[in-house]
Amino acid sequence: MVTLSEVAKRARVTAATVSNVLRNREKVRPETAERVLRAIADLGYRPNLNARALAEGRSSTLALMLSNISNPFYPEFVLAAERAARKAGHFLMVCNTDDDAEVGRAYLNQIAGTFADGVLVMNTDIAFNEFCISTIQSAPILLTMWEHPETPPPLPCIAVDFARAGALAATHLLELGHRDIGMLVGDGCGGLQDARSNGFRAVMREAGIETDAAAMLQVRDSIDAGYIACMQLMANRPRLSAIFATNDLLAIGAAQALITLRRAVPDDVSVIGITDIQLAHQVHPALTTVAIQTAAVAELSVDRLIRLIQAPTQQPSMVVGPAPELVVRASTGPRRAGSR
Amino acid sequence: MVTLSEVAKRARVTAATVSNVLRNREKVRPETAERVLRAIADLGYRPNLNARALAEGRSSTLALMLSNISNPFYPEFVLAAERAARKAGHFLMVCNTDDDAEVGRAYLNQIAGTFADGVLVMNTDIAFNEFCISTIQSAPILLTMWEHPETPPPLPCIAVDFARAGALAATHLLELGHRDIGMLVGDGCGGLQDARSNGFRAVMREAGIETDAAAMLQVRDSIDAGYIACMQLMANRPRLSAIFATNDLLAIGAAQALITLRRAVPDDVSVIGITDIQLAHQVHPALTTVAIQTAAVAELSVDRLIRLIQAPTQQPSMVVGPAPELVVRASTGPRRAGSR
Repeated sequence: MVTLSEVAKRARVTAATVSNVLRNREKVRPETAERVLRAIADLGYRPNLNARALAEGRSSTLALMLSNISNPFYPEFVLAAERAARKAGHFLMVCNTDDDAEVGRAYLNQIAGTFADGVLVMNTDIAFNEFCISTIQSAPILLTMWEHPETPPPLPCIAVDFARAGALAATHLLELGHRDIGMLVGDGCGGLQDARSNGFRAVMREAGIETDAAAMLQVRDSIDAGYIACMQLMANRPRLSAIFATNDLLAIGAAQALITLRRAVPDDVSVIGITDIQLAHQVHPALTTVAIQTAAVAELSVDRLIRLIQAPTQQPSMVVGPAPELVVRASTGPRRAGSR
Repeated sequence: MVTLSEVAKRARVTAATVSNVLRNREKVRPETAERVLRAIADLGYRPNLNARALAEGRSSTLALMLSNISNPFYPEFVLAAERAARKAGHFLMVCNTDDDAEVGRAYLNQIAGTFADGVLVMNTDIAFNEFCISTIQSAPILLTMWEHPETPPPLPCIAVDFARAGALAATHLLELGHRDIGMLVGDGCGGLQDARSNGFRAVMREAGIETDAAAMLQVRDSIDAGYIACMQLMANRPRLSAIFATNDLLAIGAAQALITLRRAVPDDVSVIGITDIQLAHQVHPALTTVAIQTAAVAELSVDRLIRLIQAPTQQPSMVVGPAPELVVRASTGPRRAGSR
């Protein structure tokens, strides 16, 4: 196996310089960096993350705590976070708390400060004060996918403007001429997705449309629950011409229900979700949704967590992630004049 | 917070007996165990996994290495494995190797024997000899979802009879009268899914049907790849009345393609997969598939890994998991006489 020293020798630099190049540090001159990279390529050298971390006297491991690995959004976040962590020379371990605060606490005790340098936490109902205690005692904790940028939590966090995601969905449906719109509001691992529904309703209200209780259902965020809830929604309100769901799983379930009810999507009823999970483009018809830029948020989260580990006192307490963006696919269309 | 001693006091037993009850050890008499369980319920006692593990002088953490967390099969396995581990008093950390053997090796170096007592490994292309070295040096490693029970690997493993899964799919389609059957063979993280396709073809061959090359495509196991491959398959062979896919993602993608081609499922073309992921019952039409009993295999794997940690020399080298079972849903039906 090729060692770092052999690379250094071939590139006529010190081992420290090779290490700096590998970590993308700016202090290496471009010509030197290029020589090192050529030596790495020539020799087929593969950096051993573990050895490097040990040499630096730290475990080089980040942990990601999430509540429900079977919700496809989380694996997509994990994939991007793991790649970002690895790129920065860190391992990422994933802990699934199974929607159980007690389990979350147990994991936190187990991981923070023992094998993990820092912990990313998504959507959990562990009380903040428990996190604060863990932070003081051991490793830094960063909350991510915080849904309420207007009210920062008492811990460092990465927030996403979910209210804006809801607003974008509302604007899209209004522009297509929809007025009778049903709502499926997800009751997810991080609690009710009300930032999203409030953002939606604020835009509707500006357009003079109030969504009443019968046209709005709160449901657990899964495809199955979206299917059942849409059945109920269409029974309550057969004249609905569009359905807004606060996440893609509910929207996909709703579209399946409409197929069962023989209501064409989007000709009879338009459907829009929020998130843009992989499945959104894989279903038929492909789902219009508001992308929350999962991969970008995951990368930002890992980057901020690493900075927090390196310089705990110099970090802003909240960073807002990239803005959500409307992704128009096949499940939304103009309201038809003759629709029921 | 209620402690173990308080439970012991109330149940009039020693702390060791409470611990034995919590760990489901058989040496506690039923009446005693019942008294302990009642005391636990009365006091609202919650065992602290971490404290217990520390008291026993071991880290109580298992690791699960998998290759592609974004394939929905893996999160389902993780969920069941994590629950089984927790039930047995262990934590489970998940490492996603991102289909990269180099990353897998780095994780293995990092986790085996440091913070993990044992490592479950699914579908990776890390060479066996590297695992063997890790096993000797540090923590036991158990391969799981081994697809070839007829050729045990040089490491302890949990095997699944995937050839039988393929055979069950073939028998089902034959019984429905299908003869012109296309095949989508997944090229997954663990390599080509050939145990499944060979099992299928063996049954077909017994029925006097040879599947030729043009009716069989090898594709990466994803919904998108299944969609594209099915388009190609139907262009090659418009008269196919059924499609067998070696996993559900390909089958779901194939069904979506048939909808695009305006070929009704199952009236024009039947579709069957293997695995029975959650999505299989959530799509429309719901997918007929061969269930490989993911949760049961996950539980068995965790149980065997724990035994391997406790008594490395007393374990059988290979355990075959529960037999695959046909799950008939809406995507398969009788071949129609008038079908193209």
